[in-house]
Parts: sequence; structure tokens; C-alpha cells
Amino acid sequence: MQTRLFTPGPTPVPAELQLTMAAPLPHHRTPEFQQLFTRTTTLLQRIYRTEDPVVVLSASGTGAMEAAVVNLTLPGEPVLAVNAGKFGARWGELLRTYGRALHEVRLPWGESPDPEALRRAARMHGAGAIFITHSETSTGALADLEAIAAVAHELDALLIVDAITSLGAHPVETRGWGLDCVLSGSQKAFMLPPGLAFLSLSARAQARIEGNPTPRFYFDLGRALAGAPKGQTPWTPAISLVLGLEAACNRILDEGLERVWERHQILADAVRAGVAALDLPLLSARPSNAVTAVRVADRIGADAVRAGLWTRWGIKVAGGQDDFKGKLLRIGHLGAYDAADIVLLLSALEAEVARRGHGVAPGTALAAAHPVLQRLTPADA
Amino acid sequence: MQTRLFTPGPTPVPAELQLTMAAPLPHHRTPEFQQLFTRTTTLLQRIYRTEDPVVVLSASGTGAMEAAVVNLTLPGEPVLAVNAGKFGARWGELLRTYGRALHEVRLPWGESPDPEALRRAARMHGAGAIFITHSETSTGALADLEAIAAVAHELDALLIVDAITSLGAHPVETRGWGLDCVLSGSQKAFMLPPGLAFLSLSARAQARIEGNPTPRFYFDLGRALAGAPKGQTPWTPAISLVLGLEAACNRILDEGLERVWERHQILADAVRAGVAALDLPLLSARPSNAVTAVRVADRIGADAVRAGLWTRWGIKVAGGQDDFKGKLLRIGHLGAYDAADIVLLLSALEAEVARRGHGVAPGTALAAAHPVLQRLTPADA
Repeated sequence: MQTRLFTPGPTPVPAELQLTMAAPLPHHRTPEFQQLFTRTTTLLQRIYRTEDPVVVLSASGTGAMEAAVVNLTLPGEPVLAVNAGKFGARWGELLRTYGRALHEVRLPWGESPDPEALRRAARMHGAGAIFITHSETSTGALADLEAIAAVAHELDALLIVDAITSLGAHPVETRGWGLDCVLSGSQKAFMLPPGLAFLSLSARAQARIEGNPTPRFYFDLGRALAGAPKGQTPWTPAISLVLGLEAACNRILDEGLERVWERHQILADAVRAGVAALDLPLLSARPSNAVTAVRVADRIGADAVRAGLWTRWGIKVAGGQDDFKGKLLRIGHLGAYDAADIVLLLSALEAEVARRGHGVAPGTALAAAHPVLQRLTPADA
Repeated sequence: MQTRLFTPGPTPVPAELQLTMAAPLPHHRTPEFQQLFTRTTTLLQRIYRTEDPVVVLSASGTGAMEAAVVNLTLPGEPVLAVNAGKFGARWGELLRTYGRALHEVRLPWGESPDPEALRRAARMHGAGAIFITHSETSTGALADLEAIAAVAHELDALLIVDAITSLGAHPVETRGWGLDCVLSGSQKAFMLPPGLAFLSLSARAQARIEGNPTPRFYFDLGRALAGAPKGQTPWTPAISLVLGLEAACNRILDEGLERVWERHQILADAVRAGVAALDLPLLSARPSNAVTAVRVADRIGADAVRAGLWTRWGIKVAGGQDDFKGKLLRIGHLGAYDAADIVLLLSALEAEVARRGHGVAPGTALAAAHPVLQRLTPADA
């Protein structure tokens, strides 16, 4: 059976991107590659909405998180991190590993941080940097990034944003909102396999790199910035993924970044409408457009539903993590999805919960979703 | 024109490996991926000639070098590193970055380390670990790995080997020679795009990881080892490259590892015979079978020859680095090369040096190379 990924990374790779990456590789120390790399980072800047540099690392998103910590903060520096899920917790692990004076704001899974509470906590702690997760992949909760950025600016603290699953799915105005460091990765809205991570650096962020005594090498952003004007990476880059990245950025910009955001909004709204009609509650009150985390009662069984989706439909959705193991479906709709994918997903989900004794009339989910999907702009309009 | 890479990484990616990587991706937190990953690391062990774990990192070879330093040595620990080229120098940079008490054995570029001299230096310094480069890509020089391993064992020092361009091209008996940590990368003999690095860990090496106080996260080998029995990576892996890696390992093992070594030996011998017939000296007296570094007199002009190879033949060879900029051709023959590739390379090289006024009769290089190429085992034998 065909595999149909509805996971919040990796997401399906469109065939033309797969073929682009199957092209013969340029050597990375050639003008051809340097031009490719320069073109690609310029496209990334347009998607990031900034003229500041966007560094490309050959690593997963966690590598970019480590790069942000070891380059942008100082040993012993007071910092604040929001932990409202598995990826927010990772900020804390990294900051403790590197001996930063961490104040961690812990929230129940599914909640989004309150900017006002963050202001108080950051001021009290004297935080020089604030680390947040824009779209928390473990809970499907979205943070109010613009409001939190305003808080960081008021406090003159650096704002470092894990936008790994939100960039390209939600508006992220890197320059406009004054975000100092925004992280993303290739296997998310960029529709590529994992292996590349991206990170923007504001002027304030760049100023912290030089002279930072934290030992670092592979993730030394100073070296990455030094090579960037010549289209060079300090270490051998994942060349095939860079080929794919240029094509992926062009695909996003050809569709139009605002239209891509709108498509993610509508598809997420449609999933939420369908799930609500099935009487399945969301984990988060402020849900992300990248991933929908659905609570499934034990009598239905989240993992049994996931198994049915996989074995009968070839559909892979993620489950709950940590305390929510066996309690959630996490449905990814980030990247190259369209109305047809959502119709398939909701039909299959409805069939599987019905099979598990959850009484819903056939067609319930789609009846709720179809009016939402009508809002999509036709492709040739 | 078709690009023909003769660079020591990336090397040409065979079409069937390109297509394997273009397949739909499995999600990495599934039994399908875990089985793939377990199969693949088992194949890697066969190529490494060890039953010890081989860790797969989503990073370039430099990332694996950093992982070796931060996991296997202690802050302030006396260590020895051989610097006989650009990549040996990188060991020194890393070890200094992380505050190890480094004794660096510096050799002129092109020389291979003398095991006896290393024994004296390591004993004098009280080195707990020795870092070497098996095949130094910047010079084409090969180290006598087996003899150096014997020295390390005699001194009870850990031996950490950058075999990034040698593994798969030269015999490397990880278990047999008692090599504690052997590094390689996907874009070398594995014939894949860059983006994955590998590293074996002997029992002695593993014992140094736990309790090592060096801060680390992405490159924490303890986390990688903890997940390995379940076919899990701690962070999202470069999935498409892992798909390619299984196929690449099978390709190597189907040909037969010893036959792959022999093919590299014969092709390298043929290149050296052709280059000698053209009266072009090698940089190294103990040349690697992965890359041939050829000195080119200024009156001929190494960079002019490289430009001619590129514009008239589509052939990309590397040039000299650092002090040898404009002085060398570095010809890679590591990976999926065969007799036809070497014939093309030598014909084009002969034509280009002749064009630059280096008087050689047409056919000189091939007349020298063909008898060597006769030693190849036919593919269907």
C-alpha cells in the first residue's frame, strides 16, 4: 500500500523535489554550488521575511537549537525558556547542558504561553535571552509570537524562536516583529527530507557571536557567517538537500507565501471542523496550523485508531509523547497538502473511530469539512 | 556538458542509489524505519570489520570529528594529533577548541607519520588518546594505520582515526587492528551525497563516554548508543540518505569488500602509472588509493589544467589547498569508478597538459595505464 504521511515532519516530498535531488551533484567548492547556495539563501530570506542572514546547517532542527544556545548566550547568563511540551523541554535541556542560568516557565501540555506572564518572569529573572517554541509539535499549541516579541523588545532580551514546524505554515515576520533568531528545518513546510536546518540572525544576535567564549566548532555560526558572502559553508554541506531546497523555496514563492499560509489555515480549519464533528476534542485551545493534536478517549484507543489508519489506509499519523502516549493523534498538515489529502484523512479517521465503537454517522466529518475547504483559492485562479 | 566528478568527496552517485533516495520516505519513528536503520548499521559493521557499534550522525565528517573529541577525551587531558595536512590540522583545531592538552606532531604536507616517532612523542607527552588521519585528503598521503594502532595499544592510548576518505578504499580492520574510533562519511567510498557521518566505538571508547563532563548535546554519543538497540536515533535523521546508505552498503558487499579494495588499488595504480608517464610527480611517497595529489609545475599551471578539464571535458578535479593552492591536482578515484572512468580521466589530463606546452606524445598516459587496468577482475567473473 502507498504510504501517506500525515506526520508533522517528515512530510510528503513532492515528486518534482525528489527528482531534483536525484540530479548529479555539483561539487561544493565550485562557482556552480556557490551560486546555487547564494540563490537559495536569498530565497530563504524571502520566506523568513528578513534581509538578515539565514544560515543553513547540515543537521536536524536540534542541531540548530544547539547552535542558537552556544553562539547567542553566555556561560552563566540568565535566560528564560518556555516548556509547554517536548520541544520546549529541549530548550531547557540544552540550556542546562551548557550551564546557562535557566528560568524555565513550565506550562501544562496544550497550553500556550501568556505574554504578560512571560514579561514578569523574564524581568524578575533578568533574562538576557528568551527561548520559545512557536508551534509546539508535541501538543499542537501555537504561541502568540508577535506579542512575545514585543515583550522581548521591551525588556531588551534576545528572542530565539523554534519555528521549526511553523515557518511556512503561519505568518512569521522575522524582520517586522524583530525576531532575533528563527529556526526551521527542511522536513517541515519545506517539504524535503530531514537533514538541513535553518536559522536567521538579527544584527543583535550576530553581535553576540564574536567573542562568545563557549567552545563550539561544527555549530560555530561565526564560521557560517564568514563564508556566506561567498556562497560557502564551513563544512561539506548536504548537497542533494540544498538542490532540493532551492526548488522547494521556489515552489513556495511561486504559490505565493501568503497563499501558502492561507492554504495551511484553511486545511487546518477543515481538519479541526471534521474532528469537532466527530466529537473528538483538541488538546490545545490555540491550535497550530501545522499539526492538530486530537484527544482520543481510552474506550476508543488512540493507538488502535493509528494502527487502523496505517494498516487499512496507509496513513501515518503521530501519537502522543511522554505523558500523552496512547492518548493523542497528532495529525500533520504541514507542507504540500491539498483538499484531496484532507478529505482522505477525515474519511479514514471517521471510519476508524466508528470501527472502534465511536458512534458517528458516515459522512459526518466531511460534511463539516467541505464548507471550509470551499474557501481554498482554486489552483489556476 | 555532463559533469564528471573526480573529486575526493563528493564522488559520483550511481543512478540506482539516486533513485533509491527518491523513494517515498518512511517516518523515522516507525518500525519500518527502525528495521531499515538496524539493517543498515549491521551492514556498516561488516564494512567496518567490527561487531562494535557504528553510530550514524546526520552531519558532515567534521561533525563526527567533533563527536569523537567531545565524547572520548576529557578537558585538559594530554592528547596527541598528527597534522600532516588540512584535515590533520582540523583535529588540532578541535582539540584546542575543547581545551585538551594537545601535543601536535606537524609534518610537511605529503609526508606520512612515522609510527616510531609517534610512539616517542605520545609517550613523552603522556597522551591518553592519539588522533590521526588515515588518508589525508589534502595531500593524498596514507598513514600506516596498522603500525600506528600497535603503538597506541602498547601505550594504552585510545586511537581515533579519521578514515573519512579511506574506509572502503583501503583495508581498515577496525576490530582486527583494535581501532577505537573510526570515522567515515556518506559522500566518500559510500557513493552518496554528503550529509551522514559514521563512527565506530570500541569497548574502550564506549567506556569513556559516560561520565565525560564535556558539555554536548547533538553530538552526544551516549544518546546515540542508547537508541541504537531499538534502531532509533536521538534526533531526526537524514532519512533519504539512510535509505541510500542501505543500498550503498549492499552494493559494496555484493561486489565484495576485498574486491572493492582491490579495485581501488588497481585504479589508483593505473592513475599513478599514467601520471608518472606524463612526468608529473606525486606529492606523497606513500600515496592513498582514494585520491592522487599530483604536483604541476608553474609553467604548466595546475589551475589552468583544472580549468581545461572542466570546460572541455566536464571533469572536475580538486586543486591544492593552503600553501599548495595552484600547485596541485587532486584526483579522486574513490567510490563507484571503473576502468572506463580512468581511461577518460588520463586521456583528458594528457590532452590538457599537452595544450599547456608539456610535451608528451599522444597515448603516453594510456600506454602506461592499460597494463595496470588489465589486473581488474571482469565484472561477471
